Amino acid sequence: SFICTANYFREFCDRPKNSNVRLSLPAVCIVWQTAMIILFGVFIRYDEESDTHWIEHRKTKNISSDIENDFYFRYPSFQDVHVMIFVGFGFLMTFLKRYSFGAVGFNFLIAAFGLQWALLMQGWFHSLDYSDGKIKIGVESLINADFCVAGCLIAYGAVLGKVSPVQLMVLTLFGITLFAVEEYIILSLIHVNAGGSMVIHTFGGYYGLAISWMLYRPNLNQSSRLQGSVYHSDVFAMIGTLFLWMFWPSFNSAITDHGDGQHRAAINTYLALASTVLTTVAVSSLFQKHGKLDMVHIQNSTLAGGVAVGTAAEFMLMPYGSLIVGFCCGIVSTLGYIYLTPFMEKYMKIQDTCGIHNLHAMPGVIGGIVGAITAAAASESVYGREGLINTYDFEGDFKDMVPTRQGGHQAAGICVAICFGVGGGIFVGCILRLPIWGDVADDNCFDDEPYWELPEDEESIPPILEYNNHMRNKDM
Amino acid sequence: SFICTANYFREFCDRPKNSNVRLSLPAVCIVWQTAMIILFGVFIRYDEESDTHWIEHRKTKNISSDIENDFYFRYPSFQDVHVMIFVGFGFLMTFLKRYSFGAVGFNFLIAAFGLQWALLMQGWFHSLDYSDGKIKIGVESLINADFCVAGCLIAYGAVLGKVSPVQLMVLTLFGITLFAVEEYIILSLIHVNAGGSMVIHTFGGYYGLAISWMLYRPNLNQSSRLQGSVYHSDVFAMIGTLFLWMFWPSFNSAITDHGDGQHRAAINTYLALASTVLTTVAVSSLFQKHGKLDMVHIQNSTLAGGVAVGTAAEFMLMPYGSLIVGFCCGIVSTLGYIYLTPFMEKYMKIQDTCGIHNLHAMPGVIGGIVGAITAAAASESVYGREGLINTYDFEGDFKDMVPTRQGGHQAAGICVAICFGVGGGIFVGCILRLPIWGDVADDNCFDDEPYWELPEDEESIPPILEYNNHMRNKDM
Amino acid sequence: SFICTANYFREFCDRPKNSNVRLSLPAVCIVWQTAMIILFGVFIRYDEESDTHWIEHRKTKNISSDIENDFYFRYPSFQDVHVMIFVGFGFLMTFLKRYSFGAVGFNFLIAAFGLQWALLMQGWFHSLDYSDGKIKIGVESLINADFCVAGCLIAYGAVLGKVSPVQLMVLTLFGITLFAVEEYIILSLIHVNAGGSMVIHTFGGYYGLAISWMLYRPNLNQSSRLQGSVYHSDVFAMIGTLFLWMFWPSFNSAITDHGDGQHRAAINTYLALASTVLTTVAVSSLFQKHGKLDMVHIQNSTLAGGVAVGTAAEFMLMPYGSLIVGFCCGIVSTLGYIYLTPFMEKYMKIQDTCGIHNLHAMPGVIGGIVGAITAAAASESVYGREGLINTYDFEGDFKDMVPTRQGGHQAAGICVAICFGVGGGIFVGCILRLPIWGDVADDNCFDDEPYWELPEDEESIPPILEYNNHMRNKDM
Repeated sequence: SFICTANYFREFCDRPKNSNVRLSLPAVCIVWQTAMIILFGVFIRYDEESDTHWIEHRKTKNISSDIENDFYFRYPSFQDVHVMIFVGFGFLMTFLKRYSFGAVGFNFLIAAFGLQWALLMQGWFHSLDYSDGKIKIGVESLINADFCVAGCLIAYGAVLGKVSPVQLMVLTLFGITLFAVEEYIILSLIHVNAGGSMVIHTFGGYYGLAISWMLYRPNLNQSSRLQGSVYHSDVFAMIGTLFLWMFWPSFNSAITDHGDGQHRAAINTYLALASTVLTTVAVSSLFQKHGKLDMVHIQNSTLAGGVAVGTAAEFMLMPYGSLIVGFCCGIVSTLGYIYLTPFMEKYMKIQDTCGIHNLHAMPGVIGGIVGAITAAAASESVYGREGLINTYDFEGDFKDMVPTRQGGHQAAGICVAICFGVGGGIFVGCILRLPIWGDVADDNCFDDEPYWELPEDEESIPPILEYNNHMRNKDM
Repeated sequence: SFICTANYFREFCDRPKNSNVRLSLPAVCIVWQTAMIILFGVFIRYDEESDTHWIEHRKTKNISSDIENDFYFRYPSFQDVHVMIFVGFGFLMTFLKRYSFGAVGFNFLIAAFGLQWALLMQGWFHSLDYSDGKIKIGVESLINADFCVAGCLIAYGAVLGKVSPVQLMVLTLFGITLFAVEEYIILSLIHVNAGGSMVIHTFGGYYGLAISWMLYRPNLNQSSRLQGSVYHSDVFAMIGTLFLWMFWPSFNSAITDHGDGQHRAAINTYLALASTVLTTVAVSSLFQKHGKLDMVHIQNSTLAGGVAVGTAAEFMLMPYGSLIVGFCCGIVSTLGYIYLTPFMEKYMKIQDTCGIHNLHAMPGVIGGIVGAITAAAASESVYGREGLINTYDFEGDFKDMVPTRQGGHQAAGICVAICFGVGGGIFVGCILRLPIWGDVADDNCFDDEPYWELPEDEESIPPILEYNNHMRNKDM
Repeated sequence: SFICTANYFREFCDRPKNSNVRLSLPAVCIVWQTAMIILFGVFIRYDEESDTHWIEHRKTKNISSDIENDFYFRYPSFQDVHVMIFVGFGFLMTFLKRYSFGAVGFNFLIAAFGLQWALLMQGWFHSLDYSDGKIKIGVESLINADFCVAGCLIAYGAVLGKVSPVQLMVLTLFGITLFAVEEYIILSLIHVNAGGSMVIHTFGGYYGLAISWMLYRPNLNQSSRLQGSVYHSDVFAMIGTLFLWMFWPSFNSAITDHGDGQHRAAINTYLALASTVLTTVAVSSLFQKHGKLDMVHIQNSTLAGGVAVGTAAEFMLMPYGSLIVGFCCGIVSTLGYIYLTPFMEKYMKIQDTCGIHNLHAMPGVIGGIVGAITAAAASESVYGREGLINTYDFEGDFKDMVPTRQGGHQAAGICVAICFGVGGGIFVGCILRLPIWGDVADDNCFDDEPYWELPEDEESIPPILEYNNHMRNKDM
C-alpha cells in the first residue's frame, strides 16, 4: 500500500516538464546565501586556535610553539579532502559524453552551498558554546563540513543527469540536515568511533538511491543515446578517480586522533585501496568477453576499499587486515556493477547513474561491519591499556565501556545510517517529485543543453577565408 | 594628446607580421637563463633554516625540535600555491578551442623564468643581508616568488592568444621588476598589511589591461572563429578553476603569521569563495536567455571572492564578513563579464581575452577597500592587545600606529598598485608594440599553429589496411 | 655471440599473437594479491609511530608533542609523491591518441601491485626487526614504496603500447625485486647518500630500455598511424607533466633529513626545474623548422632537471649550482629527443615510446655524477662540522669517511645502478618474450582496443528523433 501510494504520487506529479530555471535557480541561490550570511552573523565565530587571542591562549595553556596549533596537524589533510570533494567527485561524474558541465558545475554549486549549511548544522550539534551561544570554528570544522557535503555528492551520483540544479539544492539542504542529525545520533549518542564509512557513505548512498527510486523515470531509455561515455570523457573521469584514490588516506585520517591515530589511518587506507585495484581488474577482466577491462569498473570499484576501511582505519586493523578488506570490496563492488545495477534498474525501479550502490552504499555497510568486528576484537594486549582507551574514547560517560559492547554499538550505527538514508531519501524524493523544480523530460536527460550555454562544437575549424566569408554573409 | 601619441605610435608599429621566433626565443631563453645563473652565483645563498648550519642555529636559538623549521609551517601551503601557478593559471586559460598549448605551455615558460627573477628582485628589496651582500632564501622566498609570478600570469590573461612567447618573456621581465618595487613601497614604506589583493591582483590586472590597450588590434574579429571554446576545452578550463578555487585558502594564508594568522586566513578565504559560487550562479542564470548558465562565469567569477579577501583574510573579518565579501564579488564579477568586458572592448579599445578586469583588477580593488575598512575598524576589544599588535605589526617604527591610520595606509596602497599597473603597462606596452617580437597578424590570433608543432588531427582513426596502403603510396 | 643468441631467442618466440588475457590477467591479480595478504600477515606490522603504543613510546622517549610524530614531517610530501606516481606518470603517458586508457589504467594497476611488493622487499632489506622477525612500517615506508614503484613506471614508459598488462605485472614483480637489491647495495653497502637519481631513474631507465631491446618489434611501423598524439591527448599529457614538475621538490625532499635537509632539497629541486624549462624551450625552438615548439620536449625534457638534482639536492649544491644542473639537462634531454631516440631505434633496435632515455636514464647518470662531485668537494668550511657529519651520515661504520672518498663511493653507485638496470632488463626481457603473455601483434600496438571495452565514439550526437527511430529499428 505504501508502494501504491508512492506510485500514485509519482503519476500525479508527471506533468509536462519545463526546464527553465531562470527565476527559481537565482532565487534559491540568493535567498539561501543571504540566510547563510545572517545565520553566520548570529552564530559563527573563530575558535581559540584561529582567533587573535591565540597568543594569550598559548601562554595560558603552556603551549610551547605555534606549530602545535591544530592548523598544522590537519591543514594538509584538509586540502586533500577539499580536492576530493571538488575535483574528485566532480570529475568522477564527467564520464557521460554530454554531461560534463553539469557534473563538474553542479557538483561545485552544491558543495559550495552545502559546506556553509554544514558548518551551521554540525556546529549546532557538536560545537555550540553554551556560554555565549556561538559556534566556534577551526580547521577541523572545515573538514567536517567537507565530509558532510560528501554525503550529498554521493547522492547526486545516483540522480546524475536526471535532475535540475534547483532540485540538487533542495537535495543538499535536506541531505546536510539529515546528515547532521544522523551523525549526532551515531557519534554522540550511540558512541560509535570514527564512523566515516557509515555516517558518510552508507547514509549518502541510500539517501541517493531512495531519491532515485522516488524519481523513477519509466521512459529513461529515450535518453539512452547520451547515457554512455566517449573516449575523452572517460579520461576526464579518471582524473576524478585518481584524486579520490590518492587522497583517500587523507580522507580517513583527517580528523582522527593526533599522532598514531592519523598515521595508522593513512597506512590502512593506502593498503586497502591498493588491494582493491587488483581484484577490481581481475573481476572486470574475467566477466567480460575477451577479457577486456571496463572503464566503469576501473573508475569506480577501485575506490571501494577506501570506503570500507573508513571506520576501522584508525583501529588496529593490521596491514594484512586492510588488504583483506580491500580484496573483498574490489570483488563485491565490481560484481555489483555487472549484476546488481542492471537488476535494480529492471526490477526495483532504481536508476543509479553512477552506480553509487556499488561504490558507496554497499562498501559503507561492509566498512561498518569491519569496524564492529575490529572493535569487538580489540584487546589490551594489542592496543596497550592507554592505547585502548585513547582509540575508542573510553572516557567520561563511557569509561566503563568494553570492546565487545563497543562492537555492538558500532553495528547499531549502521542501522541508523541506513534508516536515515532510506527514510530521508523517500521524504526528500517526494518533495523533489513536485512539478515545480524545472527538471527535464525523459528524452532530455544526461544532456547539458537544458541548463548550460554550449559552445558550437566545431572540432574541425574551417580555414580562415571560407569562415570569414561565411560569417560575413551570415552576420553582417 | 597623450592618447593621440599612443595611437600614432601604434600605427607606426603596424607592419606586416612575422611570427617566426626561431632566433629570438632561443636567444632570450639562453641569455636570460645564463644571466640568472651568474646573478644567483653572486647573490643567492641558503638561509639559516635551509643551510647545514641549522643544527648549530637550533642550539643557539634554543629551538627544541626540527619541526619548528619554517619548512613545516609553510611547505604544504607552498605546494598548493605552486599548483595554482602552474596548473591553476595554466589550465584556466585552456578554454579557447585552439590555444591550449599556448595557454599551458607559455604559462609554464614565463612562470619558470619569472620565479628566478623574482627571487632576485624581491631578495634585493626584502632580504638582502648587508653583512655579506647576499640574499638568503628559504621556503617563504619561494612562496613570494610564486606570488610575484602570479601578477604576470594575470597580465598574460588579458593578452592571451595575441602575443608571441618573446613578448611574454619581456612582459614578465618588466612585470616582476615593477612588482618588486611596488611591493616594497606598499608593504615596507607605506606599511600595508597582507596586501595580497592589491599587490598581486590589482597590479597584475591593470598591468595586463594597459598592455592590452597599447596592443589594441582593430581587426581582431578576423580571428573570431577561434575566439570561443569547444566542449572539452571548457572541461579542461574547469581543472584550472577548481585548483585555483580549492587552493586559494593556501594562497591567502601561505605567508601570514604562524599560528592563528594562517589558520584564520584559510577559514576566511574558504568561506568567501563558497559564497561567491552561489551569487555567480544566480547572476549567470538570471542574465541569460532561458536561465542557462555560462561556463565563462563559472570558470572565472567563482574565484573573485578569493581575490577580494586577499588583504583582510588575516584580519578579524569574521566568518559572516567573508561571506558578505564573497556575495558581493560574485555579483560584481559576473556582471562585469556580461556588461563591462564588451563595453571596454567596444569603447575603450581594451581587448581582455580572459576578462581579468572582472576576475582580478576589480575584485583586487574591492579587496583593498575591505582591508582598509577592516583595519580601520580594528579594536583591542576584538583582537586583544597582543593580537592587535601582532596582526598589524604595530612594532618598531610603527609602534605608535593606530587602526584608523592603518586603514588610511591600506587605502593608499590601492592607489600605488593601480598607478604601477597602469603606468607600467603603458610603458611595457610601448616596448611590446615594436615590430621585432614575432607576434602574429590579426587573422591568426588565438591559434597554436604559429608557435607549436601541431599533431594532424584525425580523431577518426582509419582502419589498419587502408591506412597502411595510403602511407605506402605516400611515403615509400 | 650473445647478441646472436638474443636474436635467435627473439625469433623463436615470434609466434602469432593472441591478446586475450581473460584467464591470465585475473589469475595473476588474484593469486599475487592473495600472496601479498599472506606475506603481510606473516611479516608486516605498524612501527612505533603508527601503533597505539605511541603514547607510551612518547613518554619513554620524552617526546613533548604529537607533532613530532614522523607523520607530520613527511605526510604532505608523501601525498605529493603519491600524486606524481598515479597522476604524474599516468597522465604523462596519455599523449598517444588511442592509448590513454592503457596509459592511466595500467599505470594504476602496476603501481597498486608494486607498492605492496615494495613494502615487503624493502622491508626485508632495510627495516626487518630481528627481535621478532617483523617489518615495521610507517609513512617513510610508504614513500619508499612509491619510489620503488617509480622505477617500474619509468620502465613502462619504454614499452608503452607494446606489452600486455600481464607482461607489465611480471615487469613490475621483477623490477621491484631488482630495485630493492640494488638499493640495498648502493645505499647500505656502498654507503651512497640520497641516491635518488641513480637508484630510481638510472636503474628504471636502463631496465626499461633493456626490456624494450629484448622485445624489439621490427614491424612496429605497421602501427605508426597510432603512434602520434591528437590535440586533446597532448593537453592531457600536460596534466602529468605539470604535476610531476610541481611536486618534484617533494619527491627529492620526502625522505631526506628532518629540518634543513628537507628544506634544502626542496629549494634545489625547485630551482633546477625552473632552469630546465628555459633551455628546453630554447633548444626545442632552435632545432625545429620555423622555430615552433614541440610538445614532446615540453612534456618531457622540462622534467630532466628534477632527475639530475635527485642525488645532490640534499647537499650544499648552492642555488646557482642547481640552476647550472638544470640548464645542462634541459639541453641534453631535448637534444636526446631530437637525435638520440631516432638513432637508438634505427641502429640499436631500442624502441623507446616515451623517450625515457632522455628523461630518466641520461639525467639520472648526470645526477649521479653531480652528486659525486658535490660530495667530493664537500668541506667543513661550507657545511660546518656537525653539518658535514649529518648530511653525509659519517657515523657508525663510516665515521672515518672523508668527502673525497665519499665522492668515489657515489660514483661507484652509478655503475651498480646501470648494471642492475641493463642486466635485469635483459633477463626480464627474455621472460617477457615467451609467447604466453597475451601481447598484441605489431600492427595492433598503441591501441586500447585489445585490452579495453571502448565506447562507440560518436562525438557528434544525433538528434533525438532520428536516433530513437534508428535504435528502434535496430534493437527492438
